[in-house]
Amino acid sequence: MRKKPEILQRRIITQSRLFNIEAVDLAFSNGNKVTFERLVPRNKGAVMIAPILGDQLLLVREYANGVERYELGFPKGIIDDDEDLLQAANREMREEVGYAANQLTFLRYMTGSSGYLSSNMALILAEDLYAAPLPGDEPEPLEVVSWPLAQIESLLDEPDFTEARSIAAIFLIKQRLQGR
Amino acid sequence: MRKKPEILQRRIITQSRLFNIEAVDLAFSNGNKVTFERLVPRNKGAVMIAPILGDQLLLVREYANGVERYELGFPKGIIDDDEDLLQAANREMREEVGYAANQLTFLRYMTGSSGYLSSNMALILAEDLYAAPLPGDEPEPLEVVSWPLAQIESLLDEPDFTEARSIAAIFLIKQRLQGR
Repeated sequence: MRKKPEILQRRIITQSRLFNIEAVDLAFSNGNKVTFERLVPRNKGAVMIAPILGDQLLLVREYANGVERYELGFPKGIIDDDEDLLQAANREMREEVGYAANQLTFLRYMTGSSGYLSSNMALILAEDLYAAPLPGDEPEPLEVVSWPLAQIESLLDEPDFTEARSIAAIFLIKQRLQGR
Repeated sequence: MRKKPEILQRRIITQSRLFNIEAVDLAFSNGNKVTFERLVPRNKGAVMIAPILGDQLLLVREYANGVERYELGFPKGIIDDDEDLLQAANREMREEVGYAANQLTFLRYMTGSSGYLSSNMALILAEDLYAAPLPGDEPEPLEVVSWPLAQIESLLDEPDFTEARSIAAIFLIKQRLQGR
């Protein structure tokens, strides 16, 4: 294993409501010194949930401000300060699709662009659902989309299903369900 | 299809060397007005390449400043101003693993966190490789890792293989190769 670069200094160079941009001064083990930027979300992480209701997967279509169009994907959101992973998963699911789950299974952590983002997201499988809607904080109600679990791979053909973590999730869910 | 929110105004609220953070004022079709932030990388997109050399996949282990550890993944990088997708793929491959490809196949675009990131990455399959190293701009040489293509799914068990787009890529590559 290679020796990690030494972190000489980290400083916040600019910030917004959602983000801190940090500059990190690094000394690599070969003596090279560089400064890299990274983006540190101002929250303690996120969850993405795959809710299974009977033979259907419950998805949402939501306006995605990063790409400026509607995106089809899994319910997801930020973990609140007073929550653990599974509590956040249940709350987000209640807010976005109107169900809670008796059975929540952690599948995997996934990172984003690890070169410049520190964020980490947990993928949670949710089963044994019961209706338990909670009001969310979205500017408009999310469109809930039922997708036949047996056709989960056909999501790859939907033009508004583009997120790498959503694509990864469909394969991870399929793999988990087949393993049973 | 739901009517997209109207973009009332976009403004750069802060910027760094790599990023612009924009605030976007939106009016949703139900009348709600909100301001969301998004992160706009200051480049024209990125490529991720899956180079296949014989029965091996060529990966790299590189220091990832976002998560502050080494990450195992595919060669990747930013598209330079004077390049198209495939030119960028060949250049990045030459810099990071020392090979160019006679056969480059576009597999798919993948977005990151579409809620707050505008970035988009193209996944490219690279075959019929020939040695053609180019010097890169990394602070230390990247570690090149050969991985048996037949065991591609075992990458999921590596603790430093965490990126959602890398996980998505292994399934997309497998699917493409099986389809032949």
